[in-house]
Amino acid sequence: MNNFTFYSPTYFVFGKRTENEAGHYVKRFGGTKVLIHYGGGSVLRSGLLDRVKASLDKEGVPYVELGGVKPNPRSGLVYQGIDLCRKENVDFVLAVGGGSVIDSAKAIAAGVKYEGDFWDFFEGKPIEAALKVGTILTIAAAGSEGSGDSVITKEEGMYKRGAGSEHLRPVFSILNPELTQTLPAFQTACGAADIMAHVFERYFTNTKEVEITDRLCEAVLLTMVKEVPRVIEDPNNYDARANIMWAGMVAHNNLVGVGREQDWSSHSIEHELSALYDVAHGAGLAVIFPAWMTYVMHQNVNRFAQIAVRVWGCQMNFENPEETAKEGIKRLKNFFKSIGLPTNFEELGAKEEDIPKMVEKMQLGENGSCGQFVKLKAKDVEAIYRLAL
Amino acid sequence: MNNFTFYSPTYFVFGKRTENEAGHYVKRFGGTKVLIHYGGGSVLRSGLLDRVKASLDKEGVPYVELGGVKPNPRSGLVYQGIDLCRKENVDFVLAVGGGSVIDSAKAIAAGVKYEGDFWDFFEGKPIEAALKVGTILTIAAAGSEGSGDSVITKEEGMYKRGAGSEHLRPVFSILNPELTQTLPAFQTACGAADIMAHVFERYFTNTKEVEITDRLCEAVLLTMVKEVPRVIEDPNNYDARANIMWAGMVAHNNLVGVGREQDWSSHSIEHELSALYDVAHGAGLAVIFPAWMTYVMHQNVNRFAQIAVRVWGCQMNFENPEETAKEGIKRLKNFFKSIGLPTNFEELGAKEEDIPKMVEKMQLGENGSCGQFVKLKAKDVEAIYRLAL
Repeated sequence: MNNFTFYSPTYFVFGKRTENEAGHYVKRFGGTKVLIHYGGGSVLRSGLLDRVKASLDKEGVPYVELGGVKPNPRSGLVYQGIDLCRKENVDFVLAVGGGSVIDSAKAIAAGVKYEGDFWDFFEGKPIEAALKVGTILTIAAAGSEGSGDSVITKEEGMYKRGAGSEHLRPVFSILNPELTQTLPAFQTACGAADIMAHVFERYFTNTKEVEITDRLCEAVLLTMVKEVPRVIEDPNNYDARANIMWAGMVAHNNLVGVGREQDWSSHSIEHELSALYDVAHGAGLAVIFPAWMTYVMHQNVNRFAQIAVRVWGCQMNFENPEETAKEGIKRLKNFFKSIGLPTNFEELGAKEEDIPKMVEKMQLGENGSCGQFVKLKAKDVEAIYRLAL
Repeated sequence: MNNFTFYSPTYFVFGKRTENEAGHYVKRFGGTKVLIHYGGGSVLRSGLLDRVKASLDKEGVPYVELGGVKPNPRSGLVYQGIDLCRKENVDFVLAVGGGSVIDSAKAIAAGVKYEGDFWDFFEGKPIEAALKVGTILTIAAAGSEGSGDSVITKEEGMYKRGAGSEHLRPVFSILNPELTQTLPAFQTACGAADIMAHVFERYFTNTKEVEITDRLCEAVLLTMVKEVPRVIEDPNNYDARANIMWAGMVAHNNLVGVGREQDWSSHSIEHELSALYDVAHGAGLAVIFPAWMTYVMHQNVNRFAQIAVRVWGCQMNFENPEETAKEGIKRLKNFFKSIGLPTNFEELGAKEEDIPKMVEKMQLGENGSCGQFVKLKAKDVEAIYRLAL
């Protein structure tokens, strides 16, 4: 196990009707003027936004609002948000939505406290301060409610990049599984793929002797394998929604990834898909992950056999562990299919002829690479895209 | 799943040589005058205390010190600590040791900020403020490094009681598994039993539909089942120590227990054993838990079968799940034996004739009860003590 630090100071408020406590928590964490940041019409139509406003009104906390966040959130709206916060002396950004809204809120929060262009942070500049961020989560997926990460797409060129900092950890996050019950099945499934992907990125590691984090990773995956089909069958299954929602937080606040090298190449590879075709991140991950696994499996066949046995319930083939490893990947692919996700380019609506362009946009160059489990060169990334055709 | 809040804001610093960063973290979290609180000679002999002082000196943070914490920490030293902190204007308590030292430090931290008798908190008064506490952990066991709990024994009458508050969560905890390598095997095993007990208290619940926390509980237990025998065999196995140490934190910061009713009767039942005989808490738990499980099993046989299958690798007996449940309890008892722990009164040095006295001291009265999974009356507690003979 490697040395590490772990810091997850977010105050989580979980359960039915908890969005009505938003005002209380904004006040508790020192917010005096709020930007309510959200996406499209669903938070308006469902009455969620009204309940959040009522909760702020009750505590006498003033607010301004900025809607319009899209999936794969864009830099343009972040600039707008930064300007609005400065003009209105906002000191607290309250995200009401899913990962895209939260990521956009985090970028605004960091940008307000920075004199330069906020995009600098997404090109590697460390974030040294940010407004406080709180969240009211409406989809179990990105884990952004408990993480210090943000992913934004720059509109000029559609580059999708990530930034991370302790300053971006939300001070509180309100998770009400009821809010996810109205999601279409496809979005629910995409969220599930995203959650599982966050675990895979940590699970496949070259660090030895990490039983506790292996087992915690498997705990999240086993929960998903049990609960996701239940919500696909019955969208109103509160308890299954609740287990998935908490699993989504645990999958990405890094508790399951400390002390070990992590990979993250599949996320980079997928980012080019969702940037180019504007497909859901989770759908892209469902296409990329089985391909990536197939390509890198020989780096550590026994690790792939381990997940096959422990998560997918495969019988270990002691004569030929590779068969077990392959069976695990097959079951993952079948699982994604069974919950209605695409598992190849065609189903996703991606095109073979765009592969060189996507590889190019990853900017790996001659000697660059992405990922840690196996350091992938441009030719490897291309091969993985092709395995996903 | 029940509604819940979860807040674990401790900054964890994990790994080799991390104790040398103590001064840095005290300063980061605003400490300007420190009480170094510790137990017996081992932190002196090992040079750990010197390294911690050097680290504080390096940052220019002044300190006073108070050693002498005993296992099952006593109220007397807490009063001394409170007086010393007030006299010396201490604003940060740095615990260097195991759960007893940390619990004593927390009690001091709360007591300094309170005009009345600190023992009030251990009789149920809510804690509203406390000095900041940091920890340098030397044994994987109590989980106090990540929890808001403290257990203190009142010397008049040897009453052992607990208090809990968000204000008692350490602001940082330094976990260096190397520091645990010098522990005698028996203490290591007692710590392991304590960690596993923290999971059991949460695992046995009447709350339905808690797959994510079930699986996280099992993740910790599976890790212990793998790693503990390895450190008993080779005390210098750093990686096995590391996995256990992080498992010990995860077991008790409540991540694995949110959203579900928890039991905690076995801890209360054990507290009377360790208060009366001054035995190690973990040794007492190893004696009590199999007895408690045997007594309450019929409340939910399938839950006991589940842990038998998922943690102990039993084959499910579908015709007779009770057999599987019993097999799981048997394997737990065998596991405790195999790592050198007592599993009955005799091996613990406890006496049958003291049973009525211990039941009496639990102050359950005519109508009181302890525990949630099964609400135990005085006669039930007596029966459990007798099952442990």
